[in-house]
Amino acid sequence: MRKQLFDIPKGIIYLDGNSLGPLPVSVNKKLNQTVNDEWRTLLIKGWNDAGWHRQPLTLGDRLAKLIGAQANTVVVGDTLSIKIYQALAASLQMRPDRKVVLSDNGNFPTDLYMAKGLLDSLDKDYELRIVDPEAIAENLDESVAALMLTQVDYRTGRLHNMKELTARAHAVGSVAIWDLAHSAGAMPIDLEACNAEFAAGCTYKYLNAGPGAPAFIYVRPDIVNDIKPALAGWLGHASPFGFELNYTPGPAIERMRVGTPPVLQMSALDAALDIWDGVSMSEIRKKSILLSELFISEVEKRCPTLNLVSPRDSAKRGSQVSFAFENGYAAMQAIIAGGVIGDFRAPNIMRFGFTPLYIDEDDVRQAVDVITDVIQNNLWDREEYKTRKEVT
Amino acid sequence: MRKQLFDIPKGIIYLDGNSLGPLPVSVNKKLNQTVNDEWRTLLIKGWNDAGWHRQPLTLGDRLAKLIGAQANTVVVGDTLSIKIYQALAASLQMRPDRKVVLSDNGNFPTDLYMAKGLLDSLDKDYELRIVDPEAIAENLDESVAALMLTQVDYRTGRLHNMKELTARAHAVGSVAIWDLAHSAGAMPIDLEACNAEFAAGCTYKYLNAGPGAPAFIYVRPDIVNDIKPALAGWLGHASPFGFELNYTPGPAIERMRVGTPPVLQMSALDAALDIWDGVSMSEIRKKSILLSELFISEVEKRCPTLNLVSPRDSAKRGSQVSFAFENGYAAMQAIIAGGVIGDFRAPNIMRFGFTPLYIDEDDVRQAVDVITDVIQNNLWDREEYKTRKEVT
Repeated sequence: MRKQLFDIPKGIIYLDGNSLGPLPVSVNKKLNQTVNDEWRTLLIKGWNDAGWHRQPLTLGDRLAKLIGAQANTVVVGDTLSIKIYQALAASLQMRPDRKVVLSDNGNFPTDLYMAKGLLDSLDKDYELRIVDPEAIAENLDESVAALMLTQVDYRTGRLHNMKELTARAHAVGSVAIWDLAHSAGAMPIDLEACNAEFAAGCTYKYLNAGPGAPAFIYVRPDIVNDIKPALAGWLGHASPFGFELNYTPGPAIERMRVGTPPVLQMSALDAALDIWDGVSMSEIRKKSILLSELFISEVEKRCPTLNLVSPRDSAKRGSQVSFAFENGYAAMQAIIAGGVIGDFRAPNIMRFGFTPLYIDEDDVRQAVDVITDVIQNNLWDREEYKTRKEVT
Repeated sequence: MRKQLFDIPKGIIYLDGNSLGPLPVSVNKKLNQTVNDEWRTLLIKGWNDAGWHRQPLTLGDRLAKLIGAQANTVVVGDTLSIKIYQALAASLQMRPDRKVVLSDNGNFPTDLYMAKGLLDSLDKDYELRIVDPEAIAENLDESVAALMLTQVDYRTGRLHNMKELTARAHAVGSVAIWDLAHSAGAMPIDLEACNAEFAAGCTYKYLNAGPGAPAFIYVRPDIVNDIKPALAGWLGHASPFGFELNYTPGPAIERMRVGTPPVLQMSALDAALDIWDGVSMSEIRKKSILLSELFISEVEKRCPTLNLVSPRDSAKRGSQVSFAFENGYAAMQAIIAGGVIGDFRAPNIMRFGFTPLYIDEDDVRQAVDVITDVIQNNLWDREEYKTRKEVT
């Protein structure tokens, strides 16, 4: 749909935008402007005159439109791990008499680690209860302070029904926290209708803002002014440049800011968001399903040794398709060597992401040709593909 | 000393490197390489093949050399606020029976806010005790879990004796945490000799890594493996790509990593650190004192209405000089309009930073000419200079 807005190397079919989006063409110019017209030229004055100081909020407002949130409910900064910590810490304040945080084993590990780290530090009888994704509803009871889930499973692409689970959480008095890492920019999200208290996400996957791009957090506007931030950083202060000794939280979502924002990464995000102007998220979703369905049917027809581990029902699947294969690691290396980039997740999962902004049906067909060649001809069975690297 | 390595606009004398360092010439090329040769070309493979994943550690090792720390004791990431939080949370674990965190009212506010946010969330009888800088020693007793100070006062430039106060803290069994925001890159620091348990700092001031550049944290190697991180992010996990449900901290300083590192900012930091190769920090300090002394004597001679609020003894002063002046805000705006960039800190402090890498004696003399013109001729007394902007 907007392939010309990305700078993708010739000969590469990139099915890993669910992990790191490719380079938007506009980023070079924007970064050059930030470095030379702003940092070099304005120096310290850049904080006011180039709008750096407000950037976490202006970018938050741009992101809000992509996830069905109002203006002034989203702020950008830090990493997703930190934003999840903030959301959970605030949730526990809201439900001081409850001791359970409920999540599932399809959640991205860092969310679970950050939660456990927080709960352990609180020195109370807190429990992080991790259940199967299907068992969430039955485990929601009045002991649960917060339901903390990732909407789309990073391995299988399994999609939770955010609205329904949020309603179930609310029915037992639990707060709901959603991690949108694998859904923001991949499908329509209507945070306002969903009514969840918190959401957080990253911008380097479907939002294409580059390696290490900042995270974002959403807080429902009716509760935000009651939050006493656990991470009480100076840029979340009501008057950050008053340099008072005591912390007074800033208005609304501003209190979820912490330290000095990463201006160069913010600038790349700003450029990457331009791509979404005028894009219909429903169209993206429709096209993503079309591409995923084509991919599944072709792979299953031609590579019967690969087992689909993503939900077959597209309504229950995000924008990625995963296949299990015993030699998945080596096979993925061979596929990458063939010009099709997907990735691997332990223990045996080959992941392929479908991003209609720059992937079309021809790409999918060509990708399946490469995968078929690797699988049917055992091209993965070479030493060079079997050596593990740290990150895949 | 290395002025040619910076791209400073003609006609500007930049005395605000203590707030945001100017652009190193090499940053453009390095960023271009990171964006185009790495992100564009390697895409997801950049995490391994361009070393992005290890960057927080390789950059940490480069920084370690500038602050007297061993290799593998420093890691880069997040913001200084977050790093202070991590250090304090770990300190409280180390002294579970003590309830006081001692700091001073010259500490940068975010350190105090983050500490208070943490202490309040712990729901115990914790106290953040904030005293005058001169009263630290007398307030150190066996109730103190952690002494948390910034080495150089952001307003006045007052320099704490890090080694002596650390020894005093240790004498009463307290942990010591040092914020090096205004000293790293400004003077010799010998963390190993100082023996403090924790230090943290930022890289956008004297280290010139650009707006929003990442922070760093140091942990003394003999204690690091006992720390159970409060912010238990996946990249601090012993096996981040094993995607286990339970958190196991990574080896040594790696456990202080949290989420995905900001690769573009890391890359700018990498370029900025090249400038320090072969630079003697003692030479920097010697030159900085020479410049500051010249500045103080000239300003006092020519602008008697300005009152020195920095320590007069250069051994007790960091690399900045501050003067109090009732109309300091407007005066600083007028001085900036005259081509000399310093900054203002409420309520009445005009700050000037001295950075020998790119400031010499001629710059200081010219700067004093401009300041004298503004003060002697009341140039600050114009409406245009009196309107407050958010960040100064």
